[in-house]
Amino acid sequence: MGVFGVYNVKNASSIIYYALHALQHRGQQGAGIVTCDKENHDVFHRQKGLGLVHEIFNEKDLSELKGELGIGSVNYSNKSINGIENVLPVYFRHRSGNLAIANEGHLVNFPELQAYFEDKGVLFHTDTDSELLAQLIKKDNNPRARIYAIINALNMMEGGFTFVIMTKNRIYACRDKYGLKPLCVGKLGDGYVVSSESCAFDIIGATYIRDVEPGEILVMDHKGLHGEFYSQFKRHNMCSMEFIYYARPDSDIEGCNVHSYRKESGRRLYRECPADADIVVGVPDSSLSAAMGYAEESGIPYEMGLIKNKYIGRTFIEPTQEMREQGVKMKLSAIHSIVNGKRIVLVDDSIVRGTTCLKIIKLLRDAGATEVHVRIASPMMTHPCFYGVDTSTEEELLCSHRTLDEACQCIGADSLGYISPQSTLESGLGRSQICMACFTGEYFTTLYSHEKKK
Amino acid sequence: MGVFGVYNVKNASSIIYYALHALQHRGQQGAGIVTCDKENHDVFHRQKGLGLVHEIFNEKDLSELKGELGIGSVNYSNKSINGIENVLPVYFRHRSGNLAIANEGHLVNFPELQAYFEDKGVLFHTDTDSELLAQLIKKDNNPRARIYAIINALNMMEGGFTFVIMTKNRIYACRDKYGLKPLCVGKLGDGYVVSSESCAFDIIGATYIRDVEPGEILVMDHKGLHGEFYSQFKRHNMCSMEFIYYARPDSDIEGCNVHSYRKESGRRLYRECPADADIVVGVPDSSLSAAMGYAEESGIPYEMGLIKNKYIGRTFIEPTQEMREQGVKMKLSAIHSIVNGKRIVLVDDSIVRGTTCLKIIKLLRDAGATEVHVRIASPMMTHPCFYGVDTSTEEELLCSHRTLDEACQCIGADSLGYISPQSTLESGLGRSQICMACFTGEYFTTLYSHEKKK
Amino acid sequence: MGVFGVYNVKNASSIIYYALHALQHRGQQGAGIVTCDKENHDVFHRQKGLGLVHEIFNEKDLSELKGELGIGSVNYSNKSINGIENVLPVYFRHRSGNLAIANEGHLVNFPELQAYFEDKGVLFHTDTDSELLAQLIKKDNNPRARIYAIINALNMMEGGFTFVIMTKNRIYACRDKYGLKPLCVGKLGDGYVVSSESCAFDIIGATYIRDVEPGEILVMDHKGLHGEFYSQFKRHNMCSMEFIYYARPDSDIEGCNVHSYRKESGRRLYRECPADADIVVGVPDSSLSAAMGYAEESGIPYEMGLIKNKYIGRTFIEPTQEMREQGVKMKLSAIHSIVNGKRIVLVDDSIVRGTTCLKIIKLLRDAGATEVHVRIASPMMTHPCFYGVDTSTEEELLCSHRTLDEACQCIGADSLGYISPQSTLESGLGRSQICMACFTGEYFTTLYSHEKKK
Amino acid sequence: MGVFGVYNVKNASSIIYYALHALQHRGQQGAGIVTCDKENHDVFHRQKGLGLVHEIFNEKDLSELKGELGIGSVNYSNKSINGIENVLPVYFRHRSGNLAIANEGHLVNFPELQAYFEDKGVLFHTDTDSELLAQLIKKDNNPRARIYAIINALNMMEGGFTFVIMTKNRIYACRDKYGLKPLCVGKLGDGYVVSSESCAFDIIGATYIRDVEPGEILVMDHKGLHGEFYSQFKRHNMCSMEFIYYARPDSDIEGCNVHSYRKESGRRLYRECPADADIVVGVPDSSLSAAMGYAEESGIPYEMGLIKNKYIGRTFIEPTQEMREQGVKMKLSAIHSIVNGKRIVLVDDSIVRGTTCLKIIKLLRDAGATEVHVRIASPMMTHPCFYGVDTSTEEELLCSHRTLDEACQCIGADSLGYISPQSTLESGLGRSQICMACFTGEYFTTLYSHEKKK
Repeated sequence: MGVFGVYNVKNASSIIYYALHALQHRGQQGAGIVTCDKENHDVFHRQKGLGLVHEIFNEKDLSELKGELGIGSVNYSNKSINGIENVLPVYFRHRSGNLAIANEGHLVNFPELQAYFEDKGVLFHTDTDSELLAQLIKKDNNPRARIYAIINALNMMEGGFTFVIMTKNRIYACRDKYGLKPLCVGKLGDGYVVSSESCAFDIIGATYIRDVEPGEILVMDHKGLHGEFYSQFKRHNMCSMEFIYYARPDSDIEGCNVHSYRKESGRRLYRECPADADIVVGVPDSSLSAAMGYAEESGIPYEMGLIKNKYIGRTFIEPTQEMREQGVKMKLSAIHSIVNGKRIVLVDDSIVRGTTCLKIIKLLRDAGATEVHVRIASPMMTHPCFYGVDTSTEEELLCSHRTLDEACQCIGADSLGYISPQSTLESGLGRSQICMACFTGEYFTTLYSHEKKK
Repeated sequence: MGVFGVYNVKNASSIIYYALHALQHRGQQGAGIVTCDKENHDVFHRQKGLGLVHEIFNEKDLSELKGELGIGSVNYSNKSINGIENVLPVYFRHRSGNLAIANEGHLVNFPELQAYFEDKGVLFHTDTDSELLAQLIKKDNNPRARIYAIINALNMMEGGFTFVIMTKNRIYACRDKYGLKPLCVGKLGDGYVVSSESCAFDIIGATYIRDVEPGEILVMDHKGLHGEFYSQFKRHNMCSMEFIYYARPDSDIEGCNVHSYRKESGRRLYRECPADADIVVGVPDSSLSAAMGYAEESGIPYEMGLIKNKYIGRTFIEPTQEMREQGVKMKLSAIHSIVNGKRIVLVDDSIVRGTTCLKIIKLLRDAGATEVHVRIASPMMTHPCFYGVDTSTEEELLCSHRTLDEACQCIGADSLGYISPQSTLESGLGRSQICMACFTGEYFTTLYSHEKKK
Repeated sequence: MGVFGVYNVKNASSIIYYALHALQHRGQQGAGIVTCDKENHDVFHRQKGLGLVHEIFNEKDLSELKGELGIGSVNYSNKSINGIENVLPVYFRHRSGNLAIANEGHLVNFPELQAYFEDKGVLFHTDTDSELLAQLIKKDNNPRARIYAIINALNMMEGGFTFVIMTKNRIYACRDKYGLKPLCVGKLGDGYVVSSESCAFDIIGATYIRDVEPGEILVMDHKGLHGEFYSQFKRHNMCSMEFIYYARPDSDIEGCNVHSYRKESGRRLYRECPADADIVVGVPDSSLSAAMGYAEESGIPYEMGLIKNKYIGRTFIEPTQEMREQGVKMKLSAIHSIVNGKRIVLVDDSIVRGTTCLKIIKLLRDAGATEVHVRIASPMMTHPCFYGVDTSTEEELLCSHRTLDEACQCIGADSLGYISPQSTLESGLGRSQICMACFTGEYFTTLYSHEKKK
Repeated sequence: MGVFGVYNVKNASSIIYYALHALQHRGQQGAGIVTCDKENHDVFHRQKGLGLVHEIFNEKDLSELKGELGIGSVNYSNKSINGIENVLPVYFRHRSGNLAIANEGHLVNFPELQAYFEDKGVLFHTDTDSELLAQLIKKDNNPRARIYAIINALNMMEGGFTFVIMTKNRIYACRDKYGLKPLCVGKLGDGYVVSSESCAFDIIGATYIRDVEPGEILVMDHKGLHGEFYSQFKRHNMCSMEFIYYARPDSDIEGCNVHSYRKESGRRLYRECPADADIVVGVPDSSLSAAMGYAEESGIPYEMGLIKNKYIGRTFIEPTQEMREQGVKMKLSAIHSIVNGKRIVLVDDSIVRGTTCLKIIKLLRDAGATEVHVRIASPMMTHPCFYGVDTSTEEELLCSHRTLDEACQCIGADSLGYISPQSTLESGLGRSQICMACFTGEYFTTLYSHEKKK
């Protein structure tokens, strides 16, 4: 998921539209925008829907989303009955002032907090952390100092998260105290923007200022930009999967460009796991940077052996089982003339369950590859993530109960190599640490009811 | 534009749908499919529309396009009043048998042929070469030997073109005698497929057999695959822009993979026009292969300094002038953290008018680039194309009336270099020649009324 | 607004779809359906949206709304930010069991109840009576006897309303104790249906059983159909505007067919307010029955002097101000050849503000009518409605501060006549009374904070 | 089908849009508009599509259809492969000047004319009379006197038709010499409008001037309105089905209001075929006027015993066979409370094959009707129509081979009565005659190859 906020910029809704388009890779199931129209009695306007950003909003929608304040979100919503309600931002009218909230990430104590409120008789409309935060904030009876309500609320939440909160005259940008999720702030004209990833800044013409700090609440209002820490416990345990797989290569996270990180990891991967081959092939799109790094370091030429055919939105007709059996392969296809007769180093960013990797290796062999050596630009994934990355349960992970050799056999590769945890850390400029719980099992938080599932 | 045909394959319309999706880069204004339903008295079914393939066809359409024979097309249609009529394939009912035709390319003697028919009282519904071919074919009164009508008709046409023609029991695939346009044939199950580019074969699971030869009419019918030459004049003057810019990198054209061609041209470009710089940046998407080749050969690291933000179909809201002035740049954006403080080699596939290049250089400088050295993986473009590539008029071409230095100054680069015509030829495996008329002014055909415009 | 429920009928969602189409006149801004899928662990499925029924649901939606239990609603939603949330049914997951609720009508103590809950810290997602009912029901801690929770909740609500409530194995149909709003139950196959109006029964092939009684909770479950009264105060004060204007002519309300009621009121209208004229013209669509009655009784021929041009959904382009000034009249047009040179009795069902009537009279005169005698098939409307009929504020009502003569002059008629309250009562079979508060100011309930607005 | 033209009126395309909406009942499968933009070098703009008018055109389309001249059409197109091409108007660019044509009706010598042109080598893109007319017009080599080309062309055409033809500075409105099809002209501002039916004039604020005469070509140009007769053979054999069934009740045809005609036919129907019954019920929508006339004359009350549920465009989900068997009846439903226990006179405008009538009688009996006496406001239909009314083949007509008694038995009525041909004639003001070929078999034209089918 991805969040975005705009303070004091003309046509805020259009700015958010283009920014969400740039953040589309973080959530493709739904999107929403809420704006506050100061010239019209601080009325809040909202539009949201299921699908891709360009499928949800039309020009009329944007023109009706008036105002110079706004927040938006792209969503990775599940297929529950609350589908459309779960699309963020949530919005509440309340006598203490209107409130719109969007978030990214995952609270590990969500079930406990929800149970607490359900016991008190609260009816939940959504399954979102944002609604939970609204419940926590609303309990406080002193509307003049809403910042204290937010501080108290965030201190009850455990997990990896970012929140953007909009009131009629402020936007609050909050980041979890472990620094697990990214959030950065930029300047646009006389106003400010806040985004899950900096790649959105380049598109809208904004200038990056800095990352929101772990444990910080950054406030944008008539006094400008000013921060407040809701916790003295502050770490920089950024999720390593953001660098490895999730973020866009043109984003900078905690001072490190993602493409550069991946390329460096590819170079280190070669040094740690070399291979004797004719060409280097990356799995598109997220592994291309690592594959280039591998090629650069090894001197083995980088070639376009696999092509990804994009599904474009909800109107695209997916191949039926019958068509797939006839041979139609939309997701990935191997280029026969490049692959045929070649020994291949296949560079991928990570292996979760191994099923995709198995298929790709078969694709390459069917197209004539004589050898396929798999090199993974992250360590062996052995544990599930509880902070919002959609990996899998422990049982399903390829490497949770397998040795390297067993894993190699399982996916049908000629050889298999993973980068070391140490290199994963060192590929970035990392101030101190990054979260590698999915590789090491060292979670930075308590896990509450997830403990047993671990 | 791109054409595709299917002979004797179940669910022909779905096969065509996925193939046209793979050929989408060749025409994004419209698409059409015609099938022949042998189980229902050879009825022809048709669906066509304006927009992208996935916007035009829904599941119901595909299920109604019954039959195991079919042809389809993606179109680069102009905004004339005949918009929807111009979308190919054209279809004619006639007592001598139904006929559907799609084509790619451009006839240089189109105005002369059209005038000839208009003088005879023919009313044209479209501006397409396909309708002209139908008029030429239909004149012949002997339906049992339609192949002779087609042979005679093609001999009246000058230019760069491919045609796919469907009757109730045959598909004819035709290529111009100069070999200017690509067309290849593959095997799928018990049937055959024909495509402008081989990239469509990988997606649908077909196997490449061979290219249709220049001057050849390849017939698919109950006797299998059999060719006929309508002309003894046969050349292999494939359009160089197919290799340089137009085709998909995962296609093979005349035995040469496009990505490999581009990478090799990038390597040669470095050898001919080296540059002293910190990073190599390619203009996405078509210049990436050449940029990688340049980086490989030079040892200068390839970096992702520019990002292209895809417009996805007709529902995407393009930025208004006001938004663009606010700073929104959807087409291309420069990545500040990669570009800032760097000396850049900017590799592009070609320069037509120079306006885009000018903008990109400005983008890079605004993002902090200290030097921008432009290297072009094709020779100086000095002449217009009359065979279907949408370049420009001679007056508008950056290099038609400028020296290299003047061109460099005009686009605001620190230096500018072009690959030599010789290298353009040698980067491919080229059996003999390729058409480089836009670089050299040596047209392989007479140009009729275009002569004066040359 | 209109509600509909289905218990134990195959393809419940399709049944609801057609029923909501028949109830479309009761709400054209949004619609929703919730079903309970007993074969899949009692999962609730939901789909809702803004627009007309046929614009919201597609075949895939209906096929995914699995189950043999379901409720649906057509909505007259305002344009608040909560637009899409306000579309009923609301749905809540809760540990005590899932709950879906839809309602029609209006609570007069809504602000008081909402304030009570807001003071307790409840955040409201919608402005609907249904959410309020959910809050009231949920407070009860004994899930085995939910019926008591519903009984208690309904006893806290004042106003004119109907509710349909769905749990995983029951549907509850509730009607206010004053009998202000209609609700009836029918048999369909082995199951039951409940509807705001009986017109929906004819379309889906259901058989009318009886009306839900005022103050009754009718339960549909495995034991069949069984009622329970939540209040011993039971009246039959059906809203007179249901008969006069709101309901479809093919519905029966409290034993009285609506078309028959209107025709009888037209006959009485002639007897009370005769007119000397050439033709009778009714204002389409709701006044046609009354106009026919007037014509039948008077012997003056009924003619089609006005035509209504239907707007068909959200894609219809409404005429701009400029087009209207050019003469485009989409809503109503007068037929020149029928109206020209004629003295007209114009029969309308009611006059609210008089602005429409003024325009119609002008239309008729412009088309050549020599005299226009207006006859209204309801009494002078002098008071606002607080029970859900969208009339107007008292200040805006034509007759709140005007005599009959002043009103006649105000709308530009040659004469004006209203039916008597007595005839309004007697045109139906009315068991005892009907609510005529908007004509008499005699409200059957306290009005709480509305008192001052009265 | 219906045609409409606008000469010298601002926003011609919007005017046409609303007019086509009013003519929608004449063709619901497709619609098109062509305008001529005099301020932009006489460029022609076109938009067309399949579906209802409001489904085809959006605001952007109308704004791009610039110009003060335009023609449009609603189409009753068959489902042939040429679906979209067959949607009128057709448009041709030609050196002798651009041409757009739309038509209504049917040529009886269409196959002969088409064969003539096919023999000359013409390829037809459509199956329309309009394209045929274009071929006929274009043959003439003298562009300065196009009127003579049109005169000659129309003299080669036999049948019932109207044409509107647009060139860059003229609109020609043509009507067949038998006067079989309606076409009338009106004034709007400083310009003119021409329409299949006058009902479109009331909506756009135009004033009716006169009908185009049989055999006339009415020209609208800078000289104003001026007529020309292409034939000295002129009759007024207006299609009787226009009065009986096809036209909108608010239209005037040849000086006679359609609603008035139908009501008068209902009165005569009672006098010729009385019935002893409790209520009169009309089949909606086209039989309502006749039913009212029957009720007025007989004194038997008119009641709303049947309700039609409108399908609204292509997005409406039609009931599946399974749903219909469950009891869903969308097209027509009988109102139980009105019909139950009653003896009914069912008034219908005509019976073609009798299948619908059979179903309606069953509907009424299922709803409790004790007797159903069918009275038809037109004579027994015994012959097919070759002039454009979609009746049926002779074999399928209920009355082609049956006596009145057999027909009555076949549809399951208690009694059956038809109005006499004489009354059909006399219900209108008919100057001399109307075409009643479908009742009498007296065709006014030769039928060419249809002779054998007669």
